[in-house]
Amino acid sequence: MTTFKATAQASPNIALIKYWGNRDQELRLPANPSLSMNLAGLTTTTTVEFDPALKQDVLILGGSEIKGKGLERVSRFLDQVRRQTSEVLKTSEVSHLFARVESRNNFPSGAGLASSASGFAALAVAASAAAGLDLNEAELSRLARLGSGSACRSVPGGFVEWTLGSDDRSSYAYSIASADHWDLRDIVALIDVEHKAVGSTEGHAVAATSPLQAARVATAPERLAQARSALLARDFAALADVVELDSLMMHAVMITSAPVLMYWQPSTIAVMQAVRQWRLNGLAACTTIDAGPNVHVICTAAAADEVALRLRVIPGVRRVLTAGVGGPAQLIPDTHLRSIAGVKSAGYNLDTHH
Amino acid sequence: MTTFKATAQASPNIALIKYWGNRDQELRLPANPSLSMNLAGLTTTTTVEFDPALKQDVLILGGSEIKGKGLERVSRFLDQVRRQTSEVLKTSEVSHLFARVESRNNFPSGAGLASSASGFAALAVAASAAAGLDLNEAELSRLARLGSGSACRSVPGGFVEWTLGSDDRSSYAYSIASADHWDLRDIVALIDVEHKAVGSTEGHAVAATSPLQAARVATAPERLAQARSALLARDFAALADVVELDSLMMHAVMITSAPVLMYWQPSTIAVMQAVRQWRLNGLAACTTIDAGPNVHVICTAAAADEVALRLRVIPGVRRVLTAGVGGPAQLIPDTHLRSIAGVKSAGYNLDTHH
Repeated sequence: MTTFKATAQASPNIALIKYWGNRDQELRLPANPSLSMNLAGLTTTTTVEFDPALKQDVLILGGSEIKGKGLERVSRFLDQVRRQTSEVLKTSEVSHLFARVESRNNFPSGAGLASSASGFAALAVAASAAAGLDLNEAELSRLARLGSGSACRSVPGGFVEWTLGSDDRSSYAYSIASADHWDLRDIVALIDVEHKAVGSTEGHAVAATSPLQAARVATAPERLAQARSALLARDFAALADVVELDSLMMHAVMITSAPVLMYWQPSTIAVMQAVRQWRLNGLAACTTIDAGPNVHVICTAAAADEVALRLRVIPGVRRVLTAGVGGPAQLIPDTHLRSIAGVKSAGYNLDTHH
Repeated sequence: MTTFKATAQASPNIALIKYWGNRDQELRLPANPSLSMNLAGLTTTTTVEFDPALKQDVLILGGSEIKGKGLERVSRFLDQVRRQTSEVLKTSEVSHLFARVESRNNFPSGAGLASSASGFAALAVAASAAAGLDLNEAELSRLARLGSGSACRSVPGGFVEWTLGSDDRSSYAYSIASADHWDLRDIVALIDVEHKAVGSTEGHAVAATSPLQAARVATAPERLAQARSALLARDFAALADVVELDSLMMHAVMITSAPVLMYWQPSTIAVMQAVRQWRLNGLAACTTIDAGPNVHVICTAAAADEVALRLRVIPGVRRVLTAGVGGPAQLIPDTHLRSIAGVKSAGYNLDTHH
């Protein structure tokens, strides 16, 4: 009995120019182009095995079997892979097989780091390889996008741009600079949540209910061009201004949506206000915030230690996590898997205080 | 030697639909119409005396003589009164006289309550009466607007709408419901400021630098219509939604302006998140925030005590101040002045904690 198996790794990414809202909800065609950096050391490792013995798809996350909506989302994604297999490889039997998906993050769950980006990037690479598809980077990025929009940005390495595109084929991400272009850091301030978090699942779907979304979308390409130039020129001051503005533009849309999406907590503001002041006083650091209370402080390597030290004493900052610029999603040869499993919680720097 | 003297009182107002940005900066013609309620018990009392013995205008605020920019602003305002006097009253000698302006607030300075609205409303009423002008409410409102935009809303009583207008003559405020129409309360949570506040003086001037201002302005009339309907129908749930949305729309513009105007402090978010939760649990309260960290909690009379109790235990809330719906700006007969001076700090309810 033949089986088809592969393992891949991918990192989450932090958007410097945000993706918020879709033109096409089903195909996850974004309302605006976006720009991100992969986060080194944080990884999702995913093994996919298409197996004639299975009667349905199986999903195991962090050692626990997942059913219900989580499994359905992965199954729908695997359907895309099975469909491509039947179209491209006429003789393939994978198109009729179910798969076992085993996935593990080396970063703590509940840390507020979106794992859907690294998750679907790793799944796209592993599932397509297991199925015998030979996809190039752009094709893998498009495939990952179908699972989770921002996952398409975790396929290429380093600093990544997700082009708007006009349809499914043309909307994918590509690297505009490799990880070693600029040693930026993302120092994540993990924030205590005092109140029940607003659900974020439907966020993209409600973006268009804000009277401000159209203006945000219309001006995003200009901010992206500014961020790209600043990034390529390694001009931190220019990058900082546009990164903060773009994050605030997204939250401006969120807080004026129906329902209102107010992800900020008191300490979120404390960190934003503090970092703004630090930058006025010469520290090369700026903030960007995703759909949650945590604050990502983007800074130069020279400023990283100082930023981490200062963040730790801000009340309500639960932990501080540091990541550099990460590489692309990639296949892991079977022989490497044992050693990777052994270092699964040593790949990043996680400090805890009070 | 003849002198011309009058005294007037006015209350500050809290905008339920915000004024932010001008079409004409000089004439303070607003970018959008707005809606407010006057705050009962909080008053500015201002005496104006045009006096042939004076060699220049004199301004005394809370017992201290003010020079420089504060005096210049009041002098420019008095120039408007002098000009109207010379146009309307051909025989007037006031047009050539300087004035002594003495003004006093019965609410603490530094409480973060904008006193320019009550200040210029009281000044408009007192100065025009002292000069012998017989202005109606709309004319007084227009005059007050020239001193401070939102001051035009402190001239009429109760719930007040500032119509957009097309020019100086047509942009003024009028009452849409008297103070006894609905016993709403404004429970002001005064917030500790951890960092130096962003200057707000230039706020209106930079509103247009936000890519979101045009969309806010374009949709403001619709929100105003919703708020007006809810107010006239005494429908608190409908009012709450649009009041919170409109405040968030203004702050969305502020946080995306150049320079960024981030007035919120950690406790500002704590109060906003708390009140949102209380409302979900049935308490008739909602929040609105001006150009500062304090949170105005608008609520029904029935909810007021509970709101004040709960606000006092939120960390970072320095004081809680309660106001009802206030009346119009008005002239004070000379014989009443002595008794008013005696109660100048007893007209509102100010609670302090930790």
